[in-house]
Amino acid sequence: MDIESAFITGANRGIGLELVRLLAANELTHQKATRVLAACRCPEERAEELQNLAQRHPNIEIIKLDVDDWSSIENAAKKADELCGKGGLNLLVNNAGVNPMDSLKSGLNFQTSDMELAVRTNILGPIQMTKALLPVLKRSAQMTPSGKAIVVNISSSAGCIKQTPLNYKFGNLFPYRVSKAGLNMASVCMAEDLRADGIICLPLHPGWVRTDMGGQKAPLSVEESVSSCLKVIKNLTMQDTGSFLSYDGEVLPW
Amino acid sequence: MDIESAFITGANRGIGLELVRLLAANELTHQKATRVLAACRCPEERAEELQNLAQRHPNIEIIKLDVDDWSSIENAAKKADELCGKGGLNLLVNNAGVNPMDSLKSGLNFQTSDMELAVRTNILGPIQMTKALLPVLKRSAQMTPSGKAIVVNISSSAGCIKQTPLNYKFGNLFPYRVSKAGLNMASVCMAEDLRADGIICLPLHPGWVRTDMGGQKAPLSVEESVSSCLKVIKNLTMQDTGSFLSYDGEVLPW
Repeated sequence: MDIESAFITGANRGIGLELVRLLAANELTHQKATRVLAACRCPEERAEELQNLAQRHPNIEIIKLDVDDWSSIENAAKKADELCGKGGLNLLVNNAGVNPMDSLKSGLNFQTSDMELAVRTNILGPIQMTKALLPVLKRSAQMTPSGKAIVVNISSSAGCIKQTPLNYKFGNLFPYRVSKAGLNMASVCMAEDLRADGIICLPLHPGWVRTDMGGQKAPLSVEESVSSCLKVIKNLTMQDTGSFLSYDGEVLPW
Repeated sequence: MDIESAFITGANRGIGLELVRLLAANELTHQKATRVLAACRCPEERAEELQNLAQRHPNIEIIKLDVDDWSSIENAAKKADELCGKGGLNLLVNNAGVNPMDSLKSGLNFQTSDMELAVRTNILGPIQMTKALLPVLKRSAQMTPSGKAIVVNISSSAGCIKQTPLNYKFGNLFPYRVSKAGLNMASVCMAEDLRADGIICLPLHPGWVRTDMGGQKAPLSVEESVSSCLKVIKNLTMQDTGSFLSYDGEVLPW
């Protein structure tokens, strides 16, 4: 599938920024320029790299968005609706997320506010984003030659309940795990809701990546992770909807 | 395991009320009287049956508790601490939960407030309850002859991500499913956190039961479900911690 337009949340750093970079440059895709709507909380302050990138690529539009704030989501969706026009939006990547760091080893002793934040940002955020952008995604599913639109929710293998007893001791991440398991279920529910509209939806594990969130011990560079993720995304078919995929294309258990 | 003391949330009706009734009467257990701490939001107003039951069974203590309210949880835990004394608490059943009913068929068009409520009551509530009662549960795990304490989180097969594509069309229950998948992950994390203390923790599917929540088409009576659940609970060992069990003892997938 050619990605003519994409909306990326959390686009000012890490995986989000790299998604914008690779999509905007079309280095991987050898297709006509993708229009990239790059959303982040503070475009004026904490998005220098993204701003520089947007100056080199006129096909990048920076959008102010706080996924914890439902009215901010509505405003961003309105902007996306105008920018995408009749062709609609091919791809939404719900990448913005939090991992309250002091919960790495604290087990049950995490701050309640960390759990509340993780649940709101990582579960409710992607749901609200998808609901708000649904009309624009539907236009793409109806209009594009391949008749598809895609919602990718950046999840994590830490959200795999089955494997949690095996890897909990290496980083318990209690609030993060709960939020990602909830996001996985939300992704499957959305996949069913959106199937009839020809919209693919799934949770994607980007691997353990050397970002601010993943830390410097992670085995994958941001480039390795994101170029693999984009290959997976471009090859998605309706058969994949609701599957928990890894950056290398493997299906993960729940 | 003999259950000498139990704390049941959502005890004024349905599964919670039946748990109180069977534990307090010891009909099933043939052991000395279980002290039952029966918690509900409005003991004065919406708990007539529970009040009647408590009049017949002096081993029932009714406790006012709103699991959406962290200070209410703290107060209830303080009361439980006093009432349970040196022996601690053998069993906590996090049964209080919500299923926003207008989401039965609405798919993605649920009210955002329904999702917020489901997440808060069904995920955060059991976590906060368990954290608050942990010192009392630990006393039991250290003191009782069998050296055990148990935390049962009443979950649902609707929280099984794997089966969701197969049964979504029969009742999509989007917010409820997301909250129960999150609760399942929280249960597994807690199981790992509490393992060293000899505290068993797991999510339990009570079956589809004829309650206010389950409706009148459900195949199981409240008595059938709860007597089966209690058999499962009484036979739990540390081997079961973190498993997703059904009322009939079967292990469910995630």
